[in-house]
Amino acid sequence: MQRYFVEKHFWERNTLQIIGEDTHHISRVMRMNEGDELIAIHPDKGPAQCFITEITDGTVHCKVQDWLHEDRELPVHVTIIASLGKGDKLEQVVQKGTELGASTIIPYQADRSVAKWDKKKEPKKIQRLQKIAKEASEQSERSVIPEVYPVYGIEQLLQLGEQYDHCFFAYANEARVSQFGTLGKALKNVQKDGKVLAVFGPEGGFSEREVERLESKGFSSIRLGPRILRMETAPLYFLSSLSYLLEEA
Amino acid sequence: MQRYFVEKHFWERNTLQIIGEDTHHISRVMRMNEGDELIAIHPDKGPAQCFITEITDGTVHCKVQDWLHEDRELPVHVTIIASLGKGDKLEQVVQKGTELGASTIIPYQADRSVAKWDKKKEPKKIQRLQKIAKEASEQSERSVIPEVYPVYGIEQLLQLGEQYDHCFFAYANEARVSQFGTLGKALKNVQKDGKVLAVFGPEGGFSEREVERLESKGFSSIRLGPRILRMETAPLYFLSSLSYLLEEA
Repeated sequence: MQRYFVEKHFWERNTLQIIGEDTHHISRVMRMNEGDELIAIHPDKGPAQCFITEITDGTVHCKVQDWLHEDRELPVHVTIIASLGKGDKLEQVVQKGTELGASTIIPYQADRSVAKWDKKKEPKKIQRLQKIAKEASEQSERSVIPEVYPVYGIEQLLQLGEQYDHCFFAYANEARVSQFGTLGKALKNVQKDGKVLAVFGPEGGFSEREVERLESKGFSSIRLGPRILRMETAPLYFLSSLSYLLEEA
Repeated sequence: MQRYFVEKHFWERNTLQIIGEDTHHISRVMRMNEGDELIAIHPDKGPAQCFITEITDGTVHCKVQDWLHEDRELPVHVTIIASLGKGDKLEQVVQKGTELGASTIIPYQADRSVAKWDKKKEPKKIQRLQKIAKEASEQSERSVIPEVYPVYGIEQLLQLGEQYDHCFFAYANEARVSQFGTLGKALKNVQKDGKVLAVFGPEGGFSEREVERLESKGFSSIRLGPRILRMETAPLYFLSSLSYLLEEA
């Protein structure tokens, strides 16, 4: 059934209103009418099965039939810090990272990021990534939309790490050495409801300065298998492994 | 160091010749010259560190310095059967599936595949996917290029399954039910050097007929976490989890 995230102030007891782009999707794309059912997701209470009571110009009025007690959320809070990359790499990380359960995604201006974002265009780009996250949340049937932050620099990143239980960074070189601690070892103390932060480098990897700074602040380097992964594949490996470990092992 | 796969008949004891597109890459893109080093990969013997002895018109002559004893290959043989999908989804599965260690990738004409391939255009499309697999193998520093087969139908797929130790199919509905066997349970008997086959449905999922046929032939349905994954994300979750389990747990 089609799912829509609806902000808190559009709910009133057991009724709610959907406005904006979603109404277009409901009435034009899905061609739904009064009496048709959909799932509306409350930011705190989660998904509710609803039916449409009225469609007026620009507003879809719904009534809650049933609160659904689904739990599709990864049992840990994971923040993915993804370096700015070429082409649509960041879009891929946001879309597929959302499907795989990330809580927060933060673009990072790495020393070796080939891509640089124009400060003026940044708000539009973040807005676009946020929209991708919303659509991926609906598609993957999550009850939370991951938040996409504005671009971070190294100092902000290191400071943010202080609020987390586990801080990792993925370093392509780890895949090239035979002596390493396994990812399983790194994740073994991750507990339910824990806060995990993982930083992923750009195409050219982290600079020495970045590695030093990250290590000095207690970030642990992790290996994601012995093959060299692209910058947009690495976060997907990490999130899949976390899901496997916590939800499927 | 730059890596190139070189077919068997271009090797002679400790010398080899590189021809075709790779020579353009070596001399024009990388601007390498006599004396420069590269890694050439022999189909059976694996990677060797080499240096260039001569560049003639269209041929790069190399000499082996050292056979490298790397092992970057997933310790199981995994065949990914990916349904035909819209846009570049199959390209994504081939590229990232290669990075994540797949051995074989087979496009599948599923009952609900929206995309249909014109038989006449199929050889070109497979050739293109094979090229993507080669480039991804070089980039991820693998010593084997996964093979991409021509499009399979359900009967071919079921017959192929007979040669495998473990046959799975990923069924979006598994993510929607609370009663399920975990992926960990499904994978617990997978042993080193075992042969694993996994089938992934198209955007609209498998038809009832497909599910019945797969189950009747002993294919087990697997869940890939509780979230609904896109058709191109599901194989990446599966391969990452296998890598985690066998290489990083």
